[in-house]
Amino acid sequence: MRRLAALSALALIAAAQPAPKPKTPSEIIAASKPAEWAAIPADDLLVMDLASGKRVVVQLAPEFAPVHVANIRRLARAGYWQGAAIYRVQDNYVAQWGNNESEKPLPAGVVKTPPAEYHRALKGLRILPLGSPDPYAPAVGFWRGWPVAYDPRRGTANLTHCYASVGVGRGLSPDTGMGGELYAAIGHGPRHLDRNIAVVGRVVSGIEHLSSLPRGTEALGFYKDRNQDVPIASVHLASELAAPARPRFEYLKETSASFAAWLHARKNRKDDFYIRPAGGVDLCNAPVPVRPITP
Amino acid sequence: MRRLAALSALALIAAAQPAPKPKTPSEIIAASKPAEWAAIPADDLLVMDLASGKRVVVQLAPEFAPVHVANIRRLARAGYWQGAAIYRVQDNYVAQWGNNESEKPLPAGVVKTPPAEYHRALKGLRILPLGSPDPYAPAVGFWRGWPVAYDPRRGTANLTHCYASVGVGRGLSPDTGMGGELYAAIGHGPRHLDRNIAVVGRVVSGIEHLSSLPRGTEALGFYKDRNQDVPIASVHLASELAAPARPRFEYLKETSASFAAWLHARKNRKDDFYIRPAGGVDLCNAPVPVRPITP
Repeated sequence: MRRLAALSALALIAAAQPAPKPKTPSEIIAASKPAEWAAIPADDLLVMDLASGKRVVVQLAPEFAPVHVANIRRLARAGYWQGAAIYRVQDNYVAQWGNNESEKPLPAGVVKTPPAEYHRALKGLRILPLGSPDPYAPAVGFWRGWPVAYDPRRGTANLTHCYASVGVGRGLSPDTGMGGELYAAIGHGPRHLDRNIAVVGRVVSGIEHLSSLPRGTEALGFYKDRNQDVPIASVHLASELAAPARPRFEYLKETSASFAAWLHARKNRKDDFYIRPAGGVDLCNAPVPVRPITP
Repeated sequence: MRRLAALSALALIAAAQPAPKPKTPSEIIAASKPAEWAAIPADDLLVMDLASGKRVVVQLAPEFAPVHVANIRRLARAGYWQGAAIYRVQDNYVAQWGNNESEKPLPAGVVKTPPAEYHRALKGLRILPLGSPDPYAPAVGFWRGWPVAYDPRRGTANLTHCYASVGVGRGLSPDTGMGGELYAAIGHGPRHLDRNIAVVGRVVSGIEHLSSLPRGTEALGFYKDRNQDVPIASVHLASELAAPARPRFEYLKETSASFAAWLHARKNRKDDFYIRPAGGVDLCNAPVPVRPITP
């Protein structure tokens, strides 16, 4: 108890509240109904097992970067990332992995120079607006579990760079990267990269295994020596794994009542810990709830 | 060279540009004049040496939380954090340190229940506006090297929770924390904590030694076992150290021409890598340049 008392620093943020108090975001999630969640297809889950035994799972976004995602699926199925490694970890920016030094031959069907899938048509997306101002885009919101920025005047939409977003490393334009070198954001969402690079998904599990890696000491966070690289054991699509071994995840639908309540609570934290609700929220501080599906 | 070519993924963001091209933020900083920088007083630098030999330096903000900062200075001078540890690391949130389990007696002069220094009067601050919309506050900007949110109507201003911001752990209000338990933000800026907790400064050097620590597996990122704690060797004010041993830092004045050019470049990245400048920036993606003063 003494320890708990001392820990009280911040620890009470998520403490349980008496009934009449406003619910915390986590309490709202806990009280949600199963039908408010949507399962993520097994073909959209990229499972990266590090040699250390730690697992990182990325949800792919074929609706936003179809050619890049098709490439990534082909690379995964062909075992392209066997022997690959995490070779760059830049503090407050990205962890990046791939084949780096090797010029591995590409599997059949991989498009070497994909189009610039940096944004897509807004048409066809029914976006739930965040309802808070954004420094980077005319509007931002959610669609099928994704954080999206959009411009109704131009009719475009793009996935945003938030914590755990995954994008495709590239050289200078018109090179868009073919998908072999991927990075995940591990600091404050680098939104200035939005619309300048192909975002292909986000880490839905295990981001802490990337964010807690030692930072590289070379320029841009590259590791100095190849023996500092963090080896990757395998990268597979969940759909390649035997059904019982597949990791499964679901996201809270933005069309659900629980999502609306959760977003409201994120904007207006008002449990025992919070005194002054902000009345607004940054898109990247409202990460769509994703959870494992347990059998 | 082959390695460089393969690395080109993202690596070219900061590559040098031919003369007529717009300068990158780093090039603007490199070309700034010495008089555009202001030295940080030695009494405002809290030097935390971890037992591992790694050093974290925090700049204190007496202009925003004078009673808490006075407490922290007293605690440092009295050796309060000898035997202290980092005992909580929550992914995409905070690393927290202090004396946790012990109920160490407080040195003389420490105010046990400081006032709620969550914001201050706007009067007296000459803030350079960021000029981009903010989801949390009517306006945001910079004052003497600090990122600040403010409300001209209410006449209040507060330090914001950005990456590397340092705040005072507390229990439930009216407890404001006396300053013995501190945390640094290690993920996307938790701006919802603004105006709900005392921000006392920011890490100006060594944040990567906190952000790369193993995440705690208990609720809220607390380490499960005390032997997982990361021991702190000492915490001193730079002013306590012999002059030659003092770490010294300076920040780029927001009143300088280089700051204006740097902020413009942060909003409008337009070097060889960037194709579409955002035209705006998040306050937390414009961290005020701070650098060591080398003799």
